[in-house]
Amino acid sequence: MTYCLGIMTRFGLVMASDSRTNAGYDQVNTTRKMHTFVMPGERVFIVLTSGSLSCTQSVLTLLRRDWDKGKGLASCPGLYDAARIIGETVRKVAQLDREALERDEYRFNVHLILGGQVKGEPPGVYLVYPQGNPLQATEDTPYLQIGETKYGRPILDRGIRFADTSLEEAAKYALLSIDSTMKSNVTVGPPIDLVAYSNDELNITRQRRFDGDDPAWTKLRTRWDQALRQAIARLPAIRFAPSPSAATAPQQESIQVVEPPPQQGDAPELQPQATETGPRRERPGRPTDRPQSSPVEG
Amino acid sequence: MTYCLGIMTRFGLVMASDSRTNAGYDQVNTTRKMHTFVMPGERVFIVLTSGSLSCTQSVLTLLRRDWDKGKGLASCPGLYDAARIIGETVRKVAQLDREALERDEYRFNVHLILGGQVKGEPPGVYLVYPQGNPLQATEDTPYLQIGETKYGRPILDRGIRFADTSLEEAAKYALLSIDSTMKSNVTVGPPIDLVAYSNDELNITRQRRFDGDDPAWTKLRTRWDQALRQAIARLPAIRFAPSPSAATAPQQESIQVVEPPPQQGDAPELQPQATETGPRRERPGRPTDRPQSSPVEG
Repeated sequence: MTYCLGIMTRFGLVMASDSRTNAGYDQVNTTRKMHTFVMPGERVFIVLTSGSLSCTQSVLTLLRRDWDKGKGLASCPGLYDAARIIGETVRKVAQLDREALERDEYRFNVHLILGGQVKGEPPGVYLVYPQGNPLQATEDTPYLQIGETKYGRPILDRGIRFADTSLEEAAKYALLSIDSTMKSNVTVGPPIDLVAYSNDELNITRQRRFDGDDPAWTKLRTRWDQALRQAIARLPAIRFAPSPSAATAPQQESIQVVEPPPQQGDAPELQPQATETGPRRERPGRPTDRPQSSPVEG
Repeated sequence: MTYCLGIMTRFGLVMASDSRTNAGYDQVNTTRKMHTFVMPGERVFIVLTSGSLSCTQSVLTLLRRDWDKGKGLASCPGLYDAARIIGETVRKVAQLDREALERDEYRFNVHLILGGQVKGEPPGVYLVYPQGNPLQATEDTPYLQIGETKYGRPILDRGIRFADTSLEEAAKYALLSIDSTMKSNVTVGPPIDLVAYSNDELNITRQRRFDGDDPAWTKLRTRWDQALRQAIARLPAIRFAPSPSAATAPQQESIQVVEPPPQQGDAPELQPQATETGPRRERPGRPTDRPQSSPVEG
């Protein structure tokens, strides 16, 4: 699987991608899914890919071959035309490979995200579908995702606003969105490629690859995990309390949402789940020597 | 669509479900998806449903008919047997309806979650698939979901631990998980049904329905949204800084992860996104009179 996203804000673009590819469960590899085409001062394209690696490689090979000859992305008049050229290339590869794939019950599942800018136009982000048609990010829908998109979406829905979100913030949201996805799906993994493109630069000047053991990446992930737990602990707490109708139904308790007890001051390093949100119910636990149940697969 | 989940911790169970049903986009209704079968002091079953409403209704009708006669769930020896009885009932309904549905290209997509306890056994949670086979929650995988499961999963993966999570905390995580799902998918919606079941009660004593305009639900959602933004603002910030190799590549900037500037003291009510995580780059914005691009569907 894969997770890639492109964010468009008033200040520019943030493009990010993971690097894990897998064929089934036992053939897991690392492959860069971010590809850049740059003519400084003239045009910048950042292409992110998901789907069958053999097919996305073909698309990139054909795009690069034309680019090197000054054709295709190298000479198209605008970003919409670039998205259309990518779509046409997807259709070419579909013509080459789709039938043979489908005969063996594989889907032709190539998706791409194009972000970039051509001189004289504003920057933008497009998603190109396996059928070759392009979808554009808008001010109301300022980000596009491909691959394993759902786990990392809620955080983007909360945080990304075209008019307000700075490039630095967008980069942070992109990394957190990828982190949430990695947390819930093992087929999305590092290294993480990140580009922050500022309006009208017409060059790529801010690019970083975060390896899995990159201290900055680890720090961000760890702190995010701690911050989330702390945020939850500070929310109104759930409390069970004897029901007002206790006279008629003596066993009943109501479920209440109440302010949490005051917290200790902000310790710089928080222990995960160290803060209790209410009095713990000291119910008798399940015996600890209870045999473990079976996992999902054997 | 639907979102239901069952959480099992050392202290008991939390079961939660939304209430939105839809057929296409224009037939959106409210239906309770939580169904309880209680024999106080003897047995408690909480059943959550997703999939074609006509089929899940049939399953529940058949289960209730047997229950009322003292058969089926009313007399089975344990929770595993209860899951098997539900699975058998799913298979009966599949025999009645599956062929006709598939002829018109509908899928037989009934999924159920069973949580509960039979006297003399520990409580547990099962997921029953459309094929009728049951999957059990374990101490390592202490929650099960059905319906639109992905948006609400990352928060559960971070927070739910069988051995540590109190019932109150689990109830809070369940509500936040549903909130994340509602934020990203309009076909999941209130009222939210919630039950917190404490080990060995063998009765349902803590049950609440949160309507969409319930002040407690609204408060929790609003505070969670604010807390998330605040948590993100307090994370290490992304900073763009001139690259160390600036002599050779004067335009390049590095992407750094740095500590955020000190925050103002904890205001009791935070303004969403009121805190900046670093100096904003005052790049020239996109002209505000740029025409809006088209949305996804017409």
